[in-house]
Amino acid sequence: MIRSYAATAKKSILTPFEFTLPPLTDVDVVIAVKYCALCHSDIHLIDGDWGIAKYPLVPGHEIIGQIVQIGNKVAGFSEGQWVGVGWQSGSCGQCAPCTHGMEHLCVTGKKRTCVNGFGGLSEKVVIDSRFVYAIPDGFELISAAPLMCAGLTVFSPLERLLLSDVQRVGVIGIGGLGHLAVQMAKAMGAEVYAFDSVSEKAKSAEVLGAIPLHDPKSAPPMNLILSTSSAQLDWNFWMERLDFNGVFCLVGYPPGDVAVANDHLLDGQKSITGSVIGSPATMRHMLQFCLRHSIRPHIETMPFSRVNEALDRVRAGKVNFRMVLENDWK
Amino acid sequence: MIRSYAATAKKSILTPFEFTLPPLTDVDVVIAVKYCALCHSDIHLIDGDWGIAKYPLVPGHEIIGQIVQIGNKVAGFSEGQWVGVGWQSGSCGQCAPCTHGMEHLCVTGKKRTCVNGFGGLSEKVVIDSRFVYAIPDGFELISAAPLMCAGLTVFSPLERLLLSDVQRVGVIGIGGLGHLAVQMAKAMGAEVYAFDSVSEKAKSAEVLGAIPLHDPKSAPPMNLILSTSSAQLDWNFWMERLDFNGVFCLVGYPPGDVAVANDHLLDGQKSITGSVIGSPATMRHMLQFCLRHSIRPHIETMPFSRVNEALDRVRAGKVNFRMVLENDWK
Repeated sequence: MIRSYAATAKKSILTPFEFTLPPLTDVDVVIAVKYCALCHSDIHLIDGDWGIAKYPLVPGHEIIGQIVQIGNKVAGFSEGQWVGVGWQSGSCGQCAPCTHGMEHLCVTGKKRTCVNGFGGLSEKVVIDSRFVYAIPDGFELISAAPLMCAGLTVFSPLERLLLSDVQRVGVIGIGGLGHLAVQMAKAMGAEVYAFDSVSEKAKSAEVLGAIPLHDPKSAPPMNLILSTSSAQLDWNFWMERLDFNGVFCLVGYPPGDVAVANDHLLDGQKSITGSVIGSPATMRHMLQFCLRHSIRPHIETMPFSRVNEALDRVRAGKVNFRMVLENDWK
Repeated sequence: MIRSYAATAKKSILTPFEFTLPPLTDVDVVIAVKYCALCHSDIHLIDGDWGIAKYPLVPGHEIIGQIVQIGNKVAGFSEGQWVGVGWQSGSCGQCAPCTHGMEHLCVTGKKRTCVNGFGGLSEKVVIDSRFVYAIPDGFELISAAPLMCAGLTVFSPLERLLLSDVQRVGVIGIGGLGHLAVQMAKAMGAEVYAFDSVSEKAKSAEVLGAIPLHDPKSAPPMNLILSTSSAQLDWNFWMERLDFNGVFCLVGYPPGDVAVANDHLLDGQKSITGSVIGSPATMRHMLQFCLRHSIRPHIETMPFSRVNEALDRVRAGKVNFRMVLENDWK
């Protein structure tokens, strides 16, 4: 039996839970979990906010561990190898997005680590090897965990939308995602501005290379604004902060519609778009990019056994900037 | 004195109006007008819809004529040469958009042919030579007129947003702009779908190379949808018609905000943008492109002296597809 921590019902605290590992298919690997970071999405799943969770639910989708078993048709992995797993654990492999290298947009068979299986707050996970990522040599393992979801989520739109290294990037929300976005945009050569409704959070982005601004009106026109916030924003206000031809990109889910005056779109040739996680190819680019530019999440650590305390800190927004739990089962 | 047709007040009919040509600066050319097409924007100006018109107002910004006088510092033009003029007649030349080849997005000194001067329904116009375009040899002059605004307005977003020649493009509104968009997207290699609330208009796009669809729900997922409509659309309905990673682009000004559910932007990685006219560089590309691919507007013609009758046909949406007037002053 595999030990884990699970929510047994909507909004419950996590309690020890044992399960039998599902059978290993030809394309799967079994990973012995060493680290698992906590993401706000885990809280949404525990709380049943999105209507997709099934209980008992084992959260955790920023997983680092060692391969302990390999399916018959898996290539390129070896036992003992350190690997990571993120939010997505499978895709159909056949639909148009999948066959265009955009598996994260799969329309017919998208699988999520904590929904279509048990997540990372467990001893072992079984995952389709196409969604398992080798951690490059030289990477501190514990630092790689938050990159599996938070890192990918902000790297993917930066890779797609940041057109040149002389551009100005604004990051709204300096938390687990935002503090990585700041570092990545900076490493891509951009001039980076940090915004957060909590001024100390914006200020904290200064050491990461951003110019923190309490009043967004004092920012120069930006070419790309990435919003990691899940709050309803004043869309027209932010569209006005964009330079001509600029792009506003949502990576957080605000409630309700996104509504803007048409003249921002037309007269300024501006765009609004969004992004969720990223493709397996982008994940691999992101890991290499972070290694090359020494981009690391700022983390706090606790053992798995203190997961409820850790979740409380995440819920309260007190973590600087990402909570990574370490497997402490004997 | 220069003869012209002008609206003397908001919503007035056009009446003969004479004016003195403004002095020729070093960068200007004087053009003797031969053809001038009518655009819906002329009607908005006559009617004072946008609050920018000054009366007497001489409409007409799809102008073809011959150079008759050349400023001292103008290079590359010769007397007798056939040229065109569109909606924009000047820009500051100094701001960021101007110095990035996006003069149409100029923020400090944008000039409009019919607002900052007298438009094309006159014997002669004086225009900054940077906004005057040589008509390539081999181009029928009368056909070039509607390209100066309608053609540029749809070519510019297609040039920017159509990523590959295997993409599917939807065109909403098959009128002066739409019937050119269909031909251009087709010539770029796309599979083109035509939509119009008037089914005969959609049907008329078939001879231009589009697949006309009365029910947009029967269209396959599209990579780019260009809306030439100025009506309020069901934004979420159209976002659902986009393929993953698809772009919805407005070139018509709908009333009110553009509002979409955030999941279209996030889960499908879709974008909304807009476009107005295009840059001088894009105008030149467009003329060469239309020459190479034999793209021509479908036009009706009348003499200048019947301009009010012509405007009535435009107002009634009866023109197939663009009305071009010919100078008939003796």
